[in-house]
Amino acid sequence: MQRIYVIATGGTIEKVYSEQTGNVENLDSKIERYFRLLRLPDAEVHITHLMNKDSLEMTADDRDRVLEAVRDRLRESAPVVITHGTDTMVETGRMLQQSLPELRHPIVLTGAMTPLGFEGSDGLQNLTESLMAARILGPGVYVVMHNQVFPIEHARKDREKARFVWK
Amino acid sequence: MQRIYVIATGGTIEKVYSEQTGNVENLDSKIERYFRLLRLPDAEVHITHLMNKDSLEMTADDRDRVLEAVRDRLRESAPVVITHGTDTMVETGRMLQQSLPELRHPIVLTGAMTPLGFEGSDGLQNLTESLMAARILGPGVYVVMHNQVFPIEHARKDREKARFVWK
Amino acid sequence: MQRIYVIATGGTIEKVYSEQTGNVENLDSKIERYFRLLRLPDAEVHITHLMNKDSLEMTADDRDRVLEAVRDRLRESAPVVITHGTDTMVETGRMLQQSLPELRHPIVLTGAMTPLGFEGSDGLQNLTESLMAARILGPGVYVVMHNQVFPIEHARKDREKARFVWK
Amino acid sequence: MQRIYVIATGGTIEKVYSEQTGNVENLDSKIERYFRLLRLPDAEVHITHLMNKDSLEMTADDRDRVLEAVRDRLRESAPVVITHGTDTMVETGRMLQQSLPELRHPIVLTGAMTPLGFEGSDGLQNLTESLMAARILGPGVYVVMHNQVFPIEHARKDREKARFVWK
Repeated sequence: MQRIYVIATGGTIEKVYSEQTGNVENLDSKIERYFRLLRLPDAEVHITHLMNKDSLEMTADDRDRVLEAVRDRLRESAPVVITHGTDTMVETGRMLQQSLPELRHPIVLTGAMTPLGFEGSDGLQNLTESLMAARILGPGVYVVMHNQVFPIEHARKDREKARFVWK
Repeated sequence: MQRIYVIATGGTIEKVYSEQTGNVENLDSKIERYFRLLRLPDAEVHITHLMNKDSLEMTADDRDRVLEAVRDRLRESAPVVITHGTDTMVETGRMLQQSLPELRHPIVLTGAMTPLGFEGSDGLQNLTESLMAARILGPGVYVVMHNQVFPIEHARKDREKARFVWK
Repeated sequence: MQRIYVIATGGTIEKVYSEQTGNVENLDSKIERYFRLLRLPDAEVHITHLMNKDSLEMTADDRDRVLEAVRDRLRESAPVVITHGTDTMVETGRMLQQSLPELRHPIVLTGAMTPLGFEGSDGLQNLTESLMAARILGPGVYVVMHNQVFPIEHARKDREKARFVWK
Repeated sequence: MQRIYVIATGGTIEKVYSEQTGNVENLDSKIERYFRLLRLPDAEVHITHLMNKDSLEMTADDRDRVLEAVRDRLRESAPVVITHGTDTMVETGRMLQQSLPELRHPIVLTGAMTPLGFEGSDGLQNLTESLMAARILGPGVYVVMHNQVFPIEHARKDREKARFVWK
């Protein structure tokens, strides 16, 4: 059995459509429902819903909470996947890299350009890829999306293209 | 072969998620893509994209355009299905009823509470029901959604419940 | 509230893929799961799983059980939808029509060419249409599939075209 | 841009439901359609449909054709993903490993327990994982499915559990 920790922080991947307002918002968590669509016979996935925020609204305090949550889970000697809004994913990743100098496991940040369950969503693809990458990658902080693996220092969001690119 | 005319005017049923803005908007038409998921071997469905508006933004001029479009199609002696935002669907329906006193075919208004292709969407259900109802119902103006058929004078949107109710 | 009785007898619409044998079989009932995808706010749907058979294997005794089940439900003064294999759907429908001469509600037979939940399936479309037709149609026995309504005496399965045609 | 070669040989992952026979069969290729659901902005995926067989029907000649196809693609210095029936996937993988001693790239075998597009299918998950694993893994021959990576010499199909296990 491979233990994998997942820390959910919100972002587009978790947004839901509100029939009352007509907007998509971080109202509810849904990644558990989508994990259940995957077959993970020898993975023990532990999901923590840390917060549910658009990443543009994440504060320094929020990032400290993410850091503490990651630190706790690394003590269990297992990889960590963080679902996160794409707008400040790199900022959070860099902070983690600077604060956690002696990693022995991979920390994978992922998210989505379109919410899970909306037509054309990349959410389930990115979750699937991140769980696979978390098993294979060496220690380090990475962004994993769209069949790409970026060491955090080389990741940059290209808003126009709606994806990450190398820098 | 049964001919059925579909007039698309926008509304939630056609909204798409924009990866650039993070909003759902009437940017693009998609009902044709969803009609293709249905098997309609002896129906000849003619779709007209008349406008693509949130129904709260429909003006009296817009409603006149809908009326003209319906009048044109009724001349072909076939039922008409109108996809429409739910907020002012009843208003448009009543105007049609008043302006078209001698109907020989049903006019069915439908829409959705959640856009086509979003998880939990009622859009394809409502399209499917409307095409069926358009074949069976007698002359008149109706709202058809959620397995319900409302003669237009008895339809009222209940925003809290996110559906239509009898009045 | 509109009460609707559903009697499930099996057929392709309910077939499931067996990972052990690699075949599709009537092993398990699934229409309830698919009904839950529909919004039916004022319908009270009562589902009975009468049997789960490929309709080519239905016997005269099985048809008698269907007849008894229909008779019971008609006493409640509500329409009845029967999910059934397409190969002998017409045979069952004709027997019902002959045995139930004084109908006051519609009896709708439906099914699918491809099982519910398989890509390209017509199952959910046919369920949606049948529930709508059961509300609107007058008394009689009908086949409802693919946006078509056949009085039972005019229905014939065209195996090549994988649909029903008029006769 | 990362080039990835995909060689499709058939197996459950590509099976389709035939409305004429009521069986699932290797009649048609469909992985291309499912690849199109994935976002692969910097991957150049080349798909070859080598054969479309239930893997229980693969002959020694068929395996030689697979070997030749892999050899050709390895010359282009890129990883290879092979979609394959699960019943003899290990046999093909071992033959490749023995015949290709000096690998400089990963060869990933994958498949599915339930065909692509059938409810509950693991096919898209396995394709997604294999494309990710093909980018990260070192040289060698592997089975990748269900969030697991098996070096070929440690893979064994457990038919009861409908998955691969370590040996």
